[in-house]
Amino acid sequence: MRSISLLGATGSVGTSTLELIRQSRAAWRVEALTANCNVAELAALAREFEAKVAVVADESCLDDLREALAGSGIEAAGGRAALCEAASRPVDITVAAIVGCAGLGPVMAAIDQGGTIALANKEALVSAGDVMTAAVAKHGATLLPVDSEHNAIFQCLAGNAIEDVRWITLTASGGPLRTMSMEELHAVTPAQAVAHPNWSMGAKISVDSATMMNKGLEFIEAHHLFPVGLDRIRIVVHPQSVIHSMVEYRDGSTLAQLGPSDMRVPIASCLAWPRRMETPCAPLDLVAQGELTFFAPDEERFPATRLAREAVQAGGAAPATLNAANEVAVASFLAGHIPFTRIALSVEEVLNQSAVTCAPTSLDEVLAVDSEARERTSALLESA
Amino acid sequence: MRSISLLGATGSVGTSTLELIRQSRAAWRVEALTANCNVAELAALAREFEAKVAVVADESCLDDLREALAGSGIEAAGGRAALCEAASRPVDITVAAIVGCAGLGPVMAAIDQGGTIALANKEALVSAGDVMTAAVAKHGATLLPVDSEHNAIFQCLAGNAIEDVRWITLTASGGPLRTMSMEELHAVTPAQAVAHPNWSMGAKISVDSATMMNKGLEFIEAHHLFPVGLDRIRIVVHPQSVIHSMVEYRDGSTLAQLGPSDMRVPIASCLAWPRRMETPCAPLDLVAQGELTFFAPDEERFPATRLAREAVQAGGAAPATLNAANEVAVASFLAGHIPFTRIALSVEEVLNQSAVTCAPTSLDEVLAVDSEARERTSALLESA
Repeated sequence: MRSISLLGATGSVGTSTLELIRQSRAAWRVEALTANCNVAELAALAREFEAKVAVVADESCLDDLREALAGSGIEAAGGRAALCEAASRPVDITVAAIVGCAGLGPVMAAIDQGGTIALANKEALVSAGDVMTAAVAKHGATLLPVDSEHNAIFQCLAGNAIEDVRWITLTASGGPLRTMSMEELHAVTPAQAVAHPNWSMGAKISVDSATMMNKGLEFIEAHHLFPVGLDRIRIVVHPQSVIHSMVEYRDGSTLAQLGPSDMRVPIASCLAWPRRMETPCAPLDLVAQGELTFFAPDEERFPATRLAREAVQAGGAAPATLNAANEVAVASFLAGHIPFTRIALSVEEVLNQSAVTCAPTSLDEVLAVDSEARERTSALLESA
Repeated sequence: MRSISLLGATGSVGTSTLELIRQSRAAWRVEALTANCNVAELAALAREFEAKVAVVADESCLDDLREALAGSGIEAAGGRAALCEAASRPVDITVAAIVGCAGLGPVMAAIDQGGTIALANKEALVSAGDVMTAAVAKHGATLLPVDSEHNAIFQCLAGNAIEDVRWITLTASGGPLRTMSMEELHAVTPAQAVAHPNWSMGAKISVDSATMMNKGLEFIEAHHLFPVGLDRIRIVVHPQSVIHSMVEYRDGSTLAQLGPSDMRVPIASCLAWPRRMETPCAPLDLVAQGELTFFAPDEERFPATRLAREAVQAGGAAPATLNAANEVAVASFLAGHIPFTRIALSVEEVLNQSAVTCAPTSLDEVLAVDSEARERTSALLESA
């Protein structure tokens, strides 16, 4: 029997995780389940999985949670400190699936207890990569990446030494706008941008996929997770998203992980690591798939990967600034305020005007960079 | 410094192995080098690599070998017993690259000393799979497969448990005749059959690739190397030969090994295992490659994979019989005596007329099955 805490239980990764646990319910003991403020679902899940504690990040929802859990014997808690306390409880595995910078604190709390963390929070590594990897090393924690690309790389590294890696190749679908001209890109609507061909995802990450900023952020994450050097990480466009990423070794062998576009596969690989567990996912059928194709990225039309690479090369506050500026710009695009091509341009402008170059050394400094960059981006977009 | 013996030093795998060792000469101590009767090359290699002993399998070449090594201080030996003695000397790794049943004895001698054997001899596993795997288990030896497909599977299994495997998928190029009709296949000449699109190989193995018997033999090898059950091993046609084989796990993850069609890659992976060594092989360029395609095998036009599967299902002497009958039929086709489509038909006829079904339990019994099947195949082809 293994124990688990799930930070962000009601989101997409959270519900997929619980679906897998439901399959072999007796094998798991659930310690903590958290949500932002979806009290009804959180309480139902906490009761179903007999969690020890349920936490709402938004403290104003705590009374409702207490009421929903009345008589269950499940502890109810609320607010940022409660979230971190729940994350710091010793368990066999913590799934860190809180979206955005709100997830940073709880992830750090889980790392500080030295456990195994299945990490689905992109911002953690993009904005606070150095702070986080230093904490992982200090506390002897283990990071298992949930993101399909990084999980693929992690799987391709099993049984191998990172010193033997020649290339890490992140595959990118290229998004729904891959074949558009600059003129067409300029006129893209939010509805077009969120229509991802392979993955069903939220609006923000779908737009990131359309701009290829998603791949830029993953490039930064890969740099922190797999320290092979920035010049050994590259991106290849692979529209079918069947190969999730690859590792080439110095002998000329390349290992690739392939699978369906189903987050339950990488989640299951983290939950059962270093073994494997059954999933109900469709098996890979390459004959039905027919062909896999590959293209070089075009950073003229899709500059986001260049911006991300430049940001991580610059270091300091640049990656956190990139991430924050992108979030604000994407929200502005989704609200219909700026054209699609303005997203990357805004991020570049904000990065260029950034004076702060010293690296944030604590979570609070990361959060300060983040909120300062958001303000500057909002100001920039409003002035236009 | 690691010690190595190379059984079959002057063949294709042998010279590729020595090319890799030449790259980092100081890291290796060469114990034994063997050849069939290519005295001049064997002696030159033994001198270059300062081997302790050089052995010719053909004892009639021993006097020439002694002369060629005069004054070098390198021991010269000849004949089957000398080959086995050389193979039984303790070394860190033995590369077993003698072609055909002549390689069986030396491979068994290397296994009996409990060492690590990089196995490039197909017949060893096809004809004597049960005998060999029993010896490997008894003596605690380690088999590293050199064949690109099995090496790929071995790499895809690193860090994983064989119990978690859902599918092993052997990829097949489909050979140079992949798109031909039955009528066209009937009229194929030896020159057409040996023109393999991706790999440069000898005539016999090229014909095996054209009939897909090569994949059939690899299916049998895979069954012995990776005991997942026959119903979990399958074949997919992949004309580009970029993916060398794949392993699908129960969670839906598939790991694949990709690389150039260059035997130095799998050889290097065995030599350096569990680490990696540099090779001068061209890196994988999927963008230049453009596309990878996949098709179901057609066992109507290419029945060899069905025959191999049936032979290994039948067990007993059937796999050794299949291999021997195929060798004789291929030689007959290459000599212009039978049409291309007769190769598989002859193998099937010989298998169908086989009365012997009890499994060979020793090397001598395997060799007896082999020579009896050769005689029967010859008789069948001559009577036609």
